[in-house]
Amino acid sequence: MKALVYHGPNKISLEDTQMPEIIFTTDAIVKISTTTICGTDLHILKGDVPTIEEGRILGHEGIGIIEDVGKSVMEFKKGDKVLISLITSCGSCSFCKKGMYSHCKNGGWLLGNSIDGTQAEYVRIPFADNGLYLLPPDADEDAAVMLSCILPTGFECGTMKGEVRPGDTIAIVGAGPVGLATLLTSKLFSPTKIIMIDIDDNRLEVARSFGATNTVNSADGMAYEKVMQITDNLGVDVVIEAVGLAETFDICQSIIAAGGNIANVGVHGKPISLRLEKLWSENITLTTRLVDAGTTALLLKMVLSGKLDAKELVSHHFDMNEILQAYDTFKNAAHNHAVKVIIRNTDI
Amino acid sequence: MKALVYHGPNKISLEDTQMPEIIFTTDAIVKISTTTICGTDLHILKGDVPTIEEGRILGHEGIGIIEDVGKSVMEFKKGDKVLISLITSCGSCSFCKKGMYSHCKNGGWLLGNSIDGTQAEYVRIPFADNGLYLLPPDADEDAAVMLSCILPTGFECGTMKGEVRPGDTIAIVGAGPVGLATLLTSKLFSPTKIIMIDIDDNRLEVARSFGATNTVNSADGMAYEKVMQITDNLGVDVVIEAVGLAETFDICQSIIAAGGNIANVGVHGKPISLRLEKLWSENITLTTRLVDAGTTALLLKMVLSGKLDAKELVSHHFDMNEILQAYDTFKNAAHNHAVKVIIRNTDI
Amino acid sequence: MKALVYHGPNKISLEDTQMPEIIFTTDAIVKISTTTICGTDLHILKGDVPTIEEGRILGHEGIGIIEDVGKSVMEFKKGDKVLISLITSCGSCSFCKKGMYSHCKNGGWLLGNSIDGTQAEYVRIPFADNGLYLLPPDADEDAAVMLSCILPTGFECGTMKGEVRPGDTIAIVGAGPVGLATLLTSKLFSPTKIIMIDIDDNRLEVARSFGATNTVNSADGMAYEKVMQITDNLGVDVVIEAVGLAETFDICQSIIAAGGNIANVGVHGKPISLRLEKLWSENITLTTRLVDAGTTALLLKMVLSGKLDAKELVSHHFDMNEILQAYDTFKNAAHNHAVKVIIRNTDI
Amino acid sequence: MKALVYHGPNKISLEDTQMPEIIFTTDAIVKISTTTICGTDLHILKGDVPTIEEGRILGHEGIGIIEDVGKSVMEFKKGDKVLISLITSCGSCSFCKKGMYSHCKNGGWLLGNSIDGTQAEYVRIPFADNGLYLLPPDADEDAAVMLSCILPTGFECGTMKGEVRPGDTIAIVGAGPVGLATLLTSKLFSPTKIIMIDIDDNRLEVARSFGATNTVNSADGMAYEKVMQITDNLGVDVVIEAVGLAETFDICQSIIAAGGNIANVGVHGKPISLRLEKLWSENITLTTRLVDAGTTALLLKMVLSGKLDAKELVSHHFDMNEILQAYDTFKNAAHNHAVKVIIRNTDI
Repeated sequence: MKALVYHGPNKISLEDTQMPEIIFTTDAIVKISTTTICGTDLHILKGDVPTIEEGRILGHEGIGIIEDVGKSVMEFKKGDKVLISLITSCGSCSFCKKGMYSHCKNGGWLLGNSIDGTQAEYVRIPFADNGLYLLPPDADEDAAVMLSCILPTGFECGTMKGEVRPGDTIAIVGAGPVGLATLLTSKLFSPTKIIMIDIDDNRLEVARSFGATNTVNSADGMAYEKVMQITDNLGVDVVIEAVGLAETFDICQSIIAAGGNIANVGVHGKPISLRLEKLWSENITLTTRLVDAGTTALLLKMVLSGKLDAKELVSHHFDMNEILQAYDTFKNAAHNHAVKVIIRNTDI
Repeated sequence: MKALVYHGPNKISLEDTQMPEIIFTTDAIVKISTTTICGTDLHILKGDVPTIEEGRILGHEGIGIIEDVGKSVMEFKKGDKVLISLITSCGSCSFCKKGMYSHCKNGGWLLGNSIDGTQAEYVRIPFADNGLYLLPPDADEDAAVMLSCILPTGFECGTMKGEVRPGDTIAIVGAGPVGLATLLTSKLFSPTKIIMIDIDDNRLEVARSFGATNTVNSADGMAYEKVMQITDNLGVDVVIEAVGLAETFDICQSIIAAGGNIANVGVHGKPISLRLEKLWSENITLTTRLVDAGTTALLLKMVLSGKLDAKELVSHHFDMNEILQAYDTFKNAAHNHAVKVIIRNTDI
Repeated sequence: MKALVYHGPNKISLEDTQMPEIIFTTDAIVKISTTTICGTDLHILKGDVPTIEEGRILGHEGIGIIEDVGKSVMEFKKGDKVLISLITSCGSCSFCKKGMYSHCKNGGWLLGNSIDGTQAEYVRIPFADNGLYLLPPDADEDAAVMLSCILPTGFECGTMKGEVRPGDTIAIVGAGPVGLATLLTSKLFSPTKIIMIDIDDNRLEVARSFGATNTVNSADGMAYEKVMQITDNLGVDVVIEAVGLAETFDICQSIIAAGGNIANVGVHGKPISLRLEKLWSENITLTTRLVDAGTTALLLKMVLSGKLDAKELVSHHFDMNEILQAYDTFKNAAHNHAVKVIIRNTDI
Repeated sequence: MKALVYHGPNKISLEDTQMPEIIFTTDAIVKISTTTICGTDLHILKGDVPTIEEGRILGHEGIGIIEDVGKSVMEFKKGDKVLISLITSCGSCSFCKKGMYSHCKNGGWLLGNSIDGTQAEYVRIPFADNGLYLLPPDADEDAAVMLSCILPTGFECGTMKGEVRPGDTIAIVGAGPVGLATLLTSKLFSPTKIIMIDIDDNRLEVARSFGATNTVNSADGMAYEKVMQITDNLGVDVVIEAVGLAETFDICQSIIAAGGNIANVGVHGKPISLRLEKLWSENITLTTRLVDAGTTALLLKMVLSGKLDAKELVSHHFDMNEILQAYDTFKNAAHNHAVKVIIRNTDI
């Protein structure tokens, strides 16, 4: 079968590989119809993710048809159309019992990381009962594949951890795919103001089309002043960090109102300077988390009912044969006005 | 009347001053029978609290008898025995409506700060209906005065913000009065392990007598290793920072388990380095807050019923005439095995 | 001044009465520009509310201009445009400290009940700082007066107590003003299905225009079967009772799914039969409450920002001189397609 | 092997039966060392539980040693000492994902109900990874077997659903094993008053020894008056119904304070009359639920650490050969001062 294989920093190729097979009785094999590329895949390409070995098939997002199931799989059968979650979870360990599936002792983020992933024609899914979600045969695949990773990430790490409530003034720092997914899902809780902050006007324009009520270009270092003006000097009730840099975190801690929540979503490579000399008395809550994908079923219901316009996140389409071109487009997202790029196995 | 007056850094004196009078119809005048000294008062002495003007009577903790009330005061009358809360609150502003009384637009921490305080024979209490609590005539004053500041501080900023739950393994960094108040109140939620961390063996011994199940002397820089040994390398579910230094905060972030809570109680003078490169993926919640004293009525009930042994915090007694000696004792708390020092107006 | 005065069951008249005056220093006098009639006022007319004495001016909803304030009032001054809340609260008693303002020991629902109300040219508002909300001079009065009672009632007793969450299937039994206010506010939390149940097709049509996704006419006794069909036999996650009868409560308990919430809003005159023989094992939560109006400031923000279309609830307009006609119209609400009727003091 | 077999109402016998075998790869076979009898087993004997077929081995509580595991079992191996939970759960269905394990689509309460149970020498445990808990080899079996059913029941359905908090005044109606388990676990949250209500003075004496601060014998129909006296006419913050009768529920709804919680634990056979004409305005929350056993790991930690004295619930010991005598003793619990009776397979 065809698959996108990683051969070290900046070396990926589309090549013929071996078909995956059932290993454990809880496994399923899925024939992939739709996949996409995550910002994390770009980090892998740069060599930033040390757990990835050479020869690994990348990708942790996808839609497909069940090809085979191990005999302990209860919920799925050959022919079912399914959504693949980025998170593999055993459902039995102490972390799974707390809903911290990303920390599962027997799972976590494995696909396209420590086991082969979804940017292929077939993929093996461990603990299939916990990692797959049944889709209606006519489900829109562009919309549904947003549920593999990006929507739960924005919803769980941003919207939910930030505890967005009706009437809140919120800010999101970073208008990339994760920031936009946060924006989309934050609207489920009816904040009155959504301020999107980024350094790229193109992205901010996209954010406005997604429902941002205010946008702030922070390239001039004046984000604090601009947000204070928008909020009558009160600051924001919730701020979501969706970049992962010291500078963007610093905007968050400068604009948060007393009693507010800072929800960190971004992947950070270095410590940041936390202004506790100011914040110690400000009744602030700062949260971090990985996506656990515990809300996937809920978000799927929202997408299928039309309450969450997941498709809005899709900007480009490619065939599996064009996957290297898809990577190029996504790498230069701002220039290409790219948000999420869809890759289709057209023979399915 | 006699009162302890601040005249600039390291200059305090016990002197005769004018009696306070009712200014607003919501005020009460309280004749003080018992007061005590807070760690914050020591900060004031060092000149660290810029809001304090020369001539200010210090103190924000106390018990007394109502001497007079303004005509809008509904809940109290002359002769009532009352507990004085450190927090003044109007009850009507947007912060009060959220229970953030410490941020009250018309109040907050005023006593012994921007208005005259309780280390005196009489004190004026603004918004008396919100800042006083009725005591039974025979209430133990040593125990009750612990409710003016230190117990709500430990309970609200430490125990509650840390969300201590039955079965938790918790750590408290700093075995001073606030750390010990946190320890006492954390027991209300039945954690299975309470690890107290400090650099002074005397304080750790006190902590053991208060119910710490484990103690760690961190003077050797090995706090992380010792806590990991105690917790089978799992770290702690909740850690409470009750010092206010970069070093002590760093212990907190090193020993917290995935999914855990760091509750900051300490007053910090500088930014700290937050290890987001590790914590971003650890599902951590970090909280800060001032004491709002919204739990004073609850804690009073606990103390009066004997469920909370507040008196355990009292180590020394002085007469009002000996208040300078009380300050000296409290300044050298570790040496004197002092926790809280009681000052009594013996003529009451 | 002119006022609507109650003289016993079914006897009300518009008559000249004495102007109210400041009694306590925390009072304000408000000149009413807009008021409306509540379902509770109709209960009063029937003689169902024994606390109402003859000679009482009715009404607990209104908008107006501050005419005078007592000297302890901090937040308002003559000339301010204000919203009047139905709930009077001292802000200091044990119930107020828990946010249970409706149970305030010195307040609660007083206006148009134990003290004179808002269906008049002027009204005295006790504890003005806690019972009034500042409005912008150009605020739409039709929309704003919905915040005096009906919107907080639907939001607090229905939407919030029911804990409506994104993706939920909810049902509301009773499409009267309170049911419709619940519907409007439930949308703030993005349920995927909102099933409105009533016995009147006109009201159900209104409900559809307000955003109900499904409607059920229960006049044929088949509500259970119809809801099961709509929900694939799962029942509903949340059901809100907005009528107050045994029959309507019974629909609620029959259609609730395992793990669901039943929020009672209706005023009940008799005990109901609770099917504990079925529900004991169904992990159900049943709630009751009075409106506390603790969310008024939040809802005002939602209305002013355009996120909550309160004006949609207004169906008719009358002048103060036509108030008896307004009562007649509201009494026959279903026939007149009436939801909320506005009464204006046109000389203001 | 020997096992207690049900042959219809009031017919049970200890007899030789076939050994259980692994059926699914997720099964385990456990050799039982300790079991006990639940109030539900008595209901079965009376013929009240229609799902029980003749020939069924009874019992859903037990401790034992793993004899064999299916090949998908990850967490356990032959020789492990384990606690058996009454709840079987797949961990993958929609109810399991919400933590409602008792409603598991592939499990729930199966043991000694729709599949053979634990009052035997061996038992088959489906989904072993989710239904067993590892015990230290030297764990006290009397204490540990209280975790199979009764402690999670009292904790989850009573203490947690009632939301017992520090300082609360709580009442528990019914001083049987479940009521006492609720009492024991409620103490983890430090209520100031625990009022135990029953019609038997022996049980009330036991309750006092378990920590009840007040006891009320309700045989004279004066429970309401007695509780009001104890509570200064305020009523209780939380009341837990642990009987399952109309009369006992009625006590609950009469003594609950405004803003309070009624947590139903009792199994009810008939509807009850809910006084909504009074409660609609009292801000009450009424909850029902089955035990989900999601807190078993937590409670096990509490028992092993000595914070929860589970052994206190054990009143009698029998050998497996005396199991019929154990049933007789438990049937006449009040007379025999029996709480929980332990049955031991002495050859293990």
